[in-house]
Amino acid sequence: MNSIQPVNVGLLGIGTVGGGTYTVLARNAEEIARRAGRPIQVFIVADSDIDRARALVGDSCQVTDEPFAVVTDPAVDVVVELIGGYTVARDLVMRAIENGKHVVTANKALLALYGNEIFAAAQQKGVTVAFEAAVAGGVPIIKALREGLSANRIEWVAGIINGTTNFILSEMREKDLPFADALSEAQRLGYAEADPTFDIEGIDAAHKTTLIAAIAFGIPVQFDKAYVEGITKLEALDIRYAGQLGYRIKLLGVTKRRQDGVELRVHPALVPEKRLLANVEGAMNAVLVKGDAVGATLYYGKGAGAEPTASAVIADLIDVTRAATTDPDNRVPHLAFQPDQLHDLAILPIEEAETAFYLRLTVEDRPGVLADITRILADEGISIDAMLQKEPEEGKGITDIIMLTHVCREKEANAAIRKIEALSSIRNYVTKIRLENLQ
Amino acid sequence: MNSIQPVNVGLLGIGTVGGGTYTVLARNAEEIARRAGRPIQVFIVADSDIDRARALVGDSCQVTDEPFAVVTDPAVDVVVELIGGYTVARDLVMRAIENGKHVVTANKALLALYGNEIFAAAQQKGVTVAFEAAVAGGVPIIKALREGLSANRIEWVAGIINGTTNFILSEMREKDLPFADALSEAQRLGYAEADPTFDIEGIDAAHKTTLIAAIAFGIPVQFDKAYVEGITKLEALDIRYAGQLGYRIKLLGVTKRRQDGVELRVHPALVPEKRLLANVEGAMNAVLVKGDAVGATLYYGKGAGAEPTASAVIADLIDVTRAATTDPDNRVPHLAFQPDQLHDLAILPIEEAETAFYLRLTVEDRPGVLADITRILADEGISIDAMLQKEPEEGKGITDIIMLTHVCREKEANAAIRKIEALSSIRNYVTKIRLENLQ
Repeated sequence: MNSIQPVNVGLLGIGTVGGGTYTVLARNAEEIARRAGRPIQVFIVADSDIDRARALVGDSCQVTDEPFAVVTDPAVDVVVELIGGYTVARDLVMRAIENGKHVVTANKALLALYGNEIFAAAQQKGVTVAFEAAVAGGVPIIKALREGLSANRIEWVAGIINGTTNFILSEMREKDLPFADALSEAQRLGYAEADPTFDIEGIDAAHKTTLIAAIAFGIPVQFDKAYVEGITKLEALDIRYAGQLGYRIKLLGVTKRRQDGVELRVHPALVPEKRLLANVEGAMNAVLVKGDAVGATLYYGKGAGAEPTASAVIADLIDVTRAATTDPDNRVPHLAFQPDQLHDLAILPIEEAETAFYLRLTVEDRPGVLADITRILADEGISIDAMLQKEPEEGKGITDIIMLTHVCREKEANAAIRKIEALSSIRNYVTKIRLENLQ
Repeated sequence: MNSIQPVNVGLLGIGTVGGGTYTVLARNAEEIARRAGRPIQVFIVADSDIDRARALVGDSCQVTDEPFAVVTDPAVDVVVELIGGYTVARDLVMRAIENGKHVVTANKALLALYGNEIFAAAQQKGVTVAFEAAVAGGVPIIKALREGLSANRIEWVAGIINGTTNFILSEMREKDLPFADALSEAQRLGYAEADPTFDIEGIDAAHKTTLIAAIAFGIPVQFDKAYVEGITKLEALDIRYAGQLGYRIKLLGVTKRRQDGVELRVHPALVPEKRLLANVEGAMNAVLVKGDAVGATLYYGKGAGAEPTASAVIADLIDVTRAATTDPDNRVPHLAFQPDQLHDLAILPIEEAETAFYLRLTVEDRPGVLADITRILADEGISIDAMLQKEPEEGKGITDIIMLTHVCREKEANAAIRKIEALSSIRNYVTKIRLENLQ
């Protein structure tokens, strides 16, 4: 880049986020130039729907349906990849890097799966691959973790980083709806896609948590090692019981540094309702980070949508512009730590994770049942923090017992549950939901 | 700086924050070097109490009681100023800049009063003055505003940025204490200083809001134009009434861009209790930022203390290290906007500020009183959003009326209040507290 020329952006994909990026770059052009020191402009757009692209950009820039023409165009300084997926997008990003372009992307799936090879290629070429928009939309959490908290040994991160599932869980709690009805409502309002699998099964949150773990602890991205559990099996009943005990259920992405490795997991979890994180409702996102020096800090805002995501894409463009003259060795490293300084801490299997648990048991209402259960828990070294026993339903002779345990290893909880389920007094399976105190 | 040498820090002041900075730099030395690409070490410490300094640092670095020897030492790359105040600190920072040193400081008072001359001198010398630690302790709000949200036209910022007053207000609400008792409790627990004036009168929060306004809107620092009102006159009664109406009272630093200028003000304000910001309790800090693209984002954490503040100081040191080889014109500008691109938007006088209001009136309990009051408000164009009328105290014939207005100009509210106070049915002065919906 020449220091008096505008920065030329090649935009791949002009759908929701791409359209937002074009719009905000145009609307705030003066403000952005005042900050960045020179104009940042869309030079060329590639989209399979040329008419849609042309309708938005008019004659302000070139339009093509051939994305590879963009990543090889000598006039393009930075490629913004907003196509999504990890087939064509991967080829395009690698080709852009080969051609010496900086890359800005919102593509968490691509980076969670192929980030190691992409960052290595960028490092070798002396270009930057920026991805603030990949996690929590417009909330600058990547920057906070990688730069703002760089003095800290990060201990853990826990985030609500999927707006679709948080909206569904808020609906289930506030309106006492079953999962399927809350999902329909989310789809009707545009918070969930027609095929919501990636969101409701926790995959999207796991992509993001994988990236968070990498920059928090300085480890390679390892999506294949993440434990992923969605919200499709959650029952309104458990959200209600959790509320009675002073907790809300959230889909959390959690990553934690332990002596022997790193926990990397996405699953529903009870969170004490007095924590700010528990009060993040609807489609909002929030990430709580625990550092050894700073303590807990929280970052909150819209995690999706055209302009919130564009906000992050453009912030990256301004960073890339500002860092253009920096010696590549002195830029902020992709994964927060210098590339030759990544750790090989193993990702721990879920059986080794340490959390508290919510257990719901349906039991026969007769003497000795509770004694059997508590003895099994004690034998496995699991102590009980709180308990709620419901009045038996009339005439049925069965009742629900809800127990909150103290922190234990998942495999200990599983062993206890297997023994409890073998008791003759137990009806159905035990419902197990993890609990995070976030202290 | 040579790229293979450690970065040598000259530390001015090794009290609470200076001690924390030394400790965290030592404890996390390996992690910090892995991130920054080279070690960052304290090379020399200046403190008036040489024994205290020596007790902490041992033989790991030089110790002196002559701070000017540090800012002129050719071996020092970065000066960390943690002395506070704006007499000696100002001279030291200017001398450090003259000598080509980068400066990292937590000194909000210094920058709110003399930031313009300090940043101009730094610009001219091609060095950086970094000040993340000056606002909200370890919460990276300066970085978020200056870099993370750089795509946005910032509309307003509202923050709880003084932990002492937030602790006092939490105590007053939770324990129904008068101000003086809550202050004593804060002093007993170390949350308030023996002379708490700077905190409880809002001056510290105004220093910080002045810096926030400058980087949010790209205007010079103008502390002398800030409106500053503390919490010393707040009554427990009003905190209680606010609670009955669904609000909490917080000391807010608010800055807002308007067509005709910038609002810059610190005062107690009612905040709807459903907002996350209203639920920030105790000595915690939180800052809510409204950008045109990203919407509202919130940043939360510890705003004071040795290690949280050290976290911000060291993050700045790592930034300075990473940017050391950057062409000065391409660094992040001190006030977010390029120095020749600052705006001259005027700071508006408080009479022009636009907020809603909480009004408490003590009135005689007789017919027509409410009609008189509401007519005055209507005449001034002020509409009422909510009202609470208490049962009259037995035998006294007087009662409290609480009104929440819609948004109006402060001078309109003041005019109405003068007329209301002139009514024969009104006892005492009208209590006026601003209200921020934060939407």
